[in-house]
Amino acid sequence: MSIGWSGFTGVGYPKTIPTAIADDVESRNLQNDPSTKKKFNLFVGASVGPEVEDRWAALDMIARRYPHQVGKEVAKGINAGRIEFADKHLSMFPQDLTYGYYNLHKKPLDWAIVEATAITPEGHIVPGASIGATPEILQSASKIIIEVNTQIPNLEGLHDINHSFLPPHRQPYLITHPSDRIGTTAISVDPDRVFLESEVIEGRLPKSLLPLQSGIGNVANSIIGGLAEGPFDNVQVWTEVFQDTFLQFFDSGKLTFATATSIRFSADRFDQFYKNWASYKDRLLLRSQQVANSPEIIRRLGVIAMNTPLEVDIYGHANSTNALGSRMLNGLGGSADFLRNAKISIMHTPSARPSKNDPTGISCIVPFASHVDQTEHDLDIIVTEQRLADVRGLSPRERAKVIIEKCAHPDYKDILREYYDRALHECMKRGAGHEPHMLRNAFKFHTNFLEHGHMKVQSWD
Amino acid sequence: MSIGWSGFTGVGYPKTIPTAIADDVESRNLQNDPSTKKKFNLFVGASVGPEVEDRWAALDMIARRYPHQVGKEVAKGINAGRIEFADKHLSMFPQDLTYGYYNLHKKPLDWAIVEATAITPEGHIVPGASIGATPEILQSASKIIIEVNTQIPNLEGLHDINHSFLPPHRQPYLITHPSDRIGTTAISVDPDRVFLESEVIEGRLPKSLLPLQSGIGNVANSIIGGLAEGPFDNVQVWTEVFQDTFLQFFDSGKLTFATATSIRFSADRFDQFYKNWASYKDRLLLRSQQVANSPEIIRRLGVIAMNTPLEVDIYGHANSTNALGSRMLNGLGGSADFLRNAKISIMHTPSARPSKNDPTGISCIVPFASHVDQTEHDLDIIVTEQRLADVRGLSPRERAKVIIEKCAHPDYKDILREYYDRALHECMKRGAGHEPHMLRNAFKFHTNFLEHGHMKVQSWD
Repeated sequence: MSIGWSGFTGVGYPKTIPTAIADDVESRNLQNDPSTKKKFNLFVGASVGPEVEDRWAALDMIARRYPHQVGKEVAKGINAGRIEFADKHLSMFPQDLTYGYYNLHKKPLDWAIVEATAITPEGHIVPGASIGATPEILQSASKIIIEVNTQIPNLEGLHDINHSFLPPHRQPYLITHPSDRIGTTAISVDPDRVFLESEVIEGRLPKSLLPLQSGIGNVANSIIGGLAEGPFDNVQVWTEVFQDTFLQFFDSGKLTFATATSIRFSADRFDQFYKNWASYKDRLLLRSQQVANSPEIIRRLGVIAMNTPLEVDIYGHANSTNALGSRMLNGLGGSADFLRNAKISIMHTPSARPSKNDPTGISCIVPFASHVDQTEHDLDIIVTEQRLADVRGLSPRERAKVIIEKCAHPDYKDILREYYDRALHECMKRGAGHEPHMLRNAFKFHTNFLEHGHMKVQSWD
Repeated sequence: MSIGWSGFTGVGYPKTIPTAIADDVESRNLQNDPSTKKKFNLFVGASVGPEVEDRWAALDMIARRYPHQVGKEVAKGINAGRIEFADKHLSMFPQDLTYGYYNLHKKPLDWAIVEATAITPEGHIVPGASIGATPEILQSASKIIIEVNTQIPNLEGLHDINHSFLPPHRQPYLITHPSDRIGTTAISVDPDRVFLESEVIEGRLPKSLLPLQSGIGNVANSIIGGLAEGPFDNVQVWTEVFQDTFLQFFDSGKLTFATATSIRFSADRFDQFYKNWASYKDRLLLRSQQVANSPEIIRRLGVIAMNTPLEVDIYGHANSTNALGSRMLNGLGGSADFLRNAKISIMHTPSARPSKNDPTGISCIVPFASHVDQTEHDLDIIVTEQRLADVRGLSPRERAKVIIEKCAHPDYKDILREYYDRALHECMKRGAGHEPHMLRNAFKFHTNFLEHGHMKVQSWD
């Protein structure tokens, strides 16, 4: 059975029904017997709260997961081979869902379960604090369950919801400023498909639901916090997710308008946000992830994109998802939607991270990324706590030098320089020096780590 | 000195001035003495004819080359480290040029040299058989030289030329059908910048200028030829380049409308085209490469994209540019513009290619692509002469199985299966099985080739 949930970055997702299903599965002990075991294909715009999704994963209730994931148990299930997971650009997932790429049936989803903060007199759904892929999930489901969350205000007016058309019937997204509206404030659904309404949620998001979680989250969050105290005025924001420091930024008066597909605040900040709803509501707008992450608009507006990878190689290829090439951590998300199309594509990362036996055991600058999510053709700027490398217009050989010199941790500079110099020498000899590599040694940082717990390669021989 | 030329896929480029410059450099023997040596930064939308560009490369007159290249001598110069080359998505290059990413000066180019088939009474330029990045190159140049090619008809009406605006002043490309026009039929330029007009070209494109060159060319060309005899009617085409078989396709009556940024016919087909200009001219349109390869429009129209890589790995990452990871062949071109945004993204390749000592010495399906230009997140279908693998919605582990079974050459199937099985076993043991790899062996196909001249790995131990 295939199920779609509303939700994006752990907000705006259904809680009661998924919890009830998990309770049922657990209390009746269904999973130990193959004849009663329940497994579902789970489709959510991005991530939902771990207390539902991670619990489903721990109970081995997830057969497939699209197009994103965050959460320890989910990642464990994926890496153990129990969950089939295909990582997809977030702007492409809703389109692929409506294209029928995940199922040949007329409706790819058997059920949609979505959170609402209100139902309009016409029976339309006013979502919670995210939109994500909810419009397309509703459009793709045979039956619909709506959970009305009465613990938070009716957020009508926060959203801009547009219909998703298939080629050849698509029209331009007529957005030329972050504040432009092209849609409606609620999602229309066929009432015949609605199965159950007004499932009331008790208790709003507990703190544990929204840990400061990803590298992306922390670094991006502090950058926005910095902007609140920075010299820039009348700033506009086109992004995927609002985090805590956006409130500071709004309160500073420097942020004129901001739009995203989800609001991912901590519980305290959500309280502040709901209490002062009137003062924020005209300055922000949620859109579906197909629009928020649209190459069309990101490119038109000239967005400045910032993202944190696991590792970047000396030529500017980045790994955002798979540690040591194979172990899925967090999914790709919208990183490549933004990086490919932004006016300035920035990757920020520490130059090194600690391993169990060495405070700088993991270099984030490597000879060859052990998995490639973003290619050299997409990155403009790489920043570490060391310095900033501006690689715009540079050839691979020039890039390698500037990335090693400006971004690598001092513990790794000589090792990387020697890799590059030797690779250059070997490749030049055979007239193959555009992007010099010693393929036999390209992953030696990673194999050294697997053997010795750190990436400090002793010798390239 | 930085120079921009018109031209895309070897058509519509200036011939007389670049040849005269090369003649001068050669006859005065300027290149052997560092004090007289001339080197230029060369900017062209894509590629021009080898008799000019390859000659410049052979004379070591090219310091930098953006954003694409095709040609033996150019590739040699790049791989030998004499030419700095940065491969860029073709739709992004004109934008990066107008953003000033290639130069901090107000005008990044000192000179633009462009081919015209007419100058309008207002002094606007009617281009030749390609547009490519010519509008942005003209916009970015301090001085302009126009070569009027009097050997081919005035092609006024063939082109749709739009201004390129910078954020925050960009507007949607209001194109919802391949035949929609959003611009003008000629490029306006500031007459003060025009240095020399009406340089008449003697002798049109000789046959040797346009060899059937790339894998992409041949395979794509035969597919279009097949469509001319196929069952599909009223076909519309949105593509980068027209090749020979498009004329067959037009003549079959099955092709209603086609649009691209360049016409890359052989000499005979160009004759046929010019002779029957009246019968074709209402059914085709050239646009700038920023529009032709625009993610916005490719995604809106739901284009079906087909491309030929050098190699694809078992998880669906593709290498389009660098043999054995380091030796640049042809540039990336528009492949990733189309593959990322198309409705159906198809890669077609032979399953194996001959090496010097083995008729199937090079497998085009490898454990790990030795260079990644297109990622697993972008491919839908992989086709070889063996069979077709539809990987839409599949997880990496599922993809590996279907790609090996359906696409690999029989000589490599067992070797790839064993790589995958062992990688799966090893990664599962450490809970890292999302995209199983043995990093120490990931490039063994390639290192085996470097040592033994073929990829038939004897053992994974």
